[in-house]
Amino acid sequence: MNGVIAAIAPQAKVIDICHDISDGDIRSGAFTLTSSCRFFPTGSVHVAIVDPGVGSKRRAIAVRTKDYVFVGPDNGVLSLALADQKVYSIHQLANRSFFLTPVSNTFQGRDVFAPVAAYLTRGVSLAQLGPVRKDFVKLKWPKAIKKGVRIYGEVVYIDKFGNGLTNVENQLVSVPSTVCCELDTNCEPLRFPACGYYGAVGLHKPVAVPGSTGFLEIAVNGGSAQQVLGLEIGTKIRVDR
Amino acid sequence: MNGVIAAIAPQAKVIDICHDISDGDIRSGAFTLTSSCRFFPTGSVHVAIVDPGVGSKRRAIAVRTKDYVFVGPDNGVLSLALADQKVYSIHQLANRSFFLTPVSNTFQGRDVFAPVAAYLTRGVSLAQLGPVRKDFVKLKWPKAIKKGVRIYGEVVYIDKFGNGLTNVENQLVSVPSTVCCELDTNCEPLRFPACGYYGAVGLHKPVAVPGSTGFLEIAVNGGSAQQVLGLEIGTKIRVDR
Amino acid sequence: MNGVIAAIAPQAKVIDICHDISDGDIRSGAFTLTSSCRFFPTGSVHVAIVDPGVGSKRRAIAVRTKDYVFVGPDNGVLSLALADQKVYSIHQLANRSFFLTPVSNTFQGRDVFAPVAAYLTRGVSLAQLGPVRKDFVKLKWPKAIKKGVRIYGEVVYIDKFGNGLTNVENQLVSVPSTVCCELDTNCEPLRFPACGYYGAVGLHKPVAVPGSTGFLEIAVNGGSAQQVLGLEIGTKIRVDR
Repeated sequence: MNGVIAAIAPQAKVIDICHDISDGDIRSGAFTLTSSCRFFPTGSVHVAIVDPGVGSKRRAIAVRTKDYVFVGPDNGVLSLALADQKVYSIHQLANRSFFLTPVSNTFQGRDVFAPVAAYLTRGVSLAQLGPVRKDFVKLKWPKAIKKGVRIYGEVVYIDKFGNGLTNVENQLVSVPSTVCCELDTNCEPLRFPACGYYGAVGLHKPVAVPGSTGFLEIAVNGGSAQQVLGLEIGTKIRVDR
Repeated sequence: MNGVIAAIAPQAKVIDICHDISDGDIRSGAFTLTSSCRFFPTGSVHVAIVDPGVGSKRRAIAVRTKDYVFVGPDNGVLSLALADQKVYSIHQLANRSFFLTPVSNTFQGRDVFAPVAAYLTRGVSLAQLGPVRKDFVKLKWPKAIKKGVRIYGEVVYIDKFGNGLTNVENQLVSVPSTVCCELDTNCEPLRFPACGYYGAVGLHKPVAVPGSTGFLEIAVNGGSAQQVLGLEIGTKIRVDR
Repeated sequence: MNGVIAAIAPQAKVIDICHDISDGDIRSGAFTLTSSCRFFPTGSVHVAIVDPGVGSKRRAIAVRTKDYVFVGPDNGVLSLALADQKVYSIHQLANRSFFLTPVSNTFQGRDVFAPVAAYLTRGVSLAQLGPVRKDFVKLKWPKAIKKGVRIYGEVVYIDKFGNGLTNVENQLVSVPSTVCCELDTNCEPLRFPACGYYGAVGLHKPVAVPGSTGFLEIAVNGGSAQQVLGLEIGTKIRVDR
């Protein structure tokens, strides 16, 4: 993909965010994109490809928002990032003059998405890429629920350190405080404090910390919450404020 | 290596293709190079280093082809890419004024190949690098064999998704069709269809798909063919057309 | 982090050295930095972050040396690189106008170190970043000991090939020669030769080789010394000259 972009748009600066999304894990790809895209310069073209349906009839799209253009398969991988942005226009990638020839059915990152992104950085408009579409596929994403002093949420992403990122917004939880978190794993619920940073609890102790993505994070100081606590995507948490 | 290049040739754009080749696996390095090099801009300098013989008497070479220069150890890692190209000249890297000082015997990527590649992007000619050589080491590479309606091939590379890339050219196999593939693993042969894309078969089902490298690929829809089918490099396949 | 830098300092060239340091392994981060930093162009800003104390009261610093600026948490991760260089000034990162807003307590690479490094490439001085500090945290680092014809050292780093890098300087060991190395692992001591390169011994045989970092390396030709010999960080070696 980088070679294709260099050939079409030598002036483009390419930044690789992540090549480690588990195969076909659209949710984790979408989460990675939404967590990082807003830190990029205005005008950036974001390409996000987790594409188990490559070669099938799934659409390929480009979406212009106020600050960015997003390019990828229309399978939900763009949808979390787009949920935070004002969407200006959605175009299906249909004009094959902006694709490589031939287009493979197994690596359209190289044959479709990279060349389209490269042409976009050279000033090609979305209208040239293909017809307008009214909507894009949206990923189902669990929302945290507030009931009185309690918040019910779940783990939605596990990062490379083994921290469990939840869907509970940081501002719902005040720290440092004596609030408790409850974790439903196979064993009985665990209770541990929410603190301002990992090192506020003893080494290898669990802690909930306001995370850098804007959401509460379940961690183990100096360890992996995934391994130590058995966290998985979908693990339920409860915060008692 | 990137630091060395930045110091010698600040204007050079460096693209990292892959740092994940298994240690000493020259075949996989050669396959990765030949699969990707043709997507780069004309004039690119390709550096490929899988170098178990580093520090020994194995040669280091630079090879000019019609479109590119290739730099690496002369142990076969360049040979698959060069087989597809018109070779103009081969030079041994011998002129130590283009190396770092001292040259280590364990990391010549840093001390020899990166600085030579950097100087090449600055206009140094191959003739300045060292004496002409007549040939380079060629990797043995199995060819698929056609016998009547059957094609006998094998898996030559396994990619990061666990797909098995074979040595059977895509154009020998028409898809979608009712052709069958037979796979000799430890158990009895498996039969599965060749289709246009992964998702043409049910989830977790095996399928053969024309691959993005130009060769037939053995895959499992939504899974790893390496894990599910027990594919290895060398696993034999048979295609009945 | 790359997005943040691109937004603040579009002209900056970013080179990613390593994202694979084990979580919280400050020693390996420090070793990687000191091994690679001197190959970069004069004037480079080196950012090194292994930061288990992120969000706590550990300091963040920028250090100017003769050739470079180093930026990172003040937990020792910079100290091996700084030990080799003439230090001109040390400043604590305190001026929040060079940070992102808000600053998270879990990802200060993005919120503190990347923006500070980006501003430094734009000409911001260390004095603008915060108050002068007299010293920085130094990592304890074992030194090899010479006793007569023997040198006592240990493994201080294991690289991605499974080679064990030691604290015995290359120039203390002459190769090729009949010197022997002794390795204390769980089993009884192993003896093997020190040679000029990996391939000087038979396949899968252990060998000590003058390494590219300037220190003796324990390797297995065509294999992983970590796996074959059971090397760990801290494994003692003895060289009989």
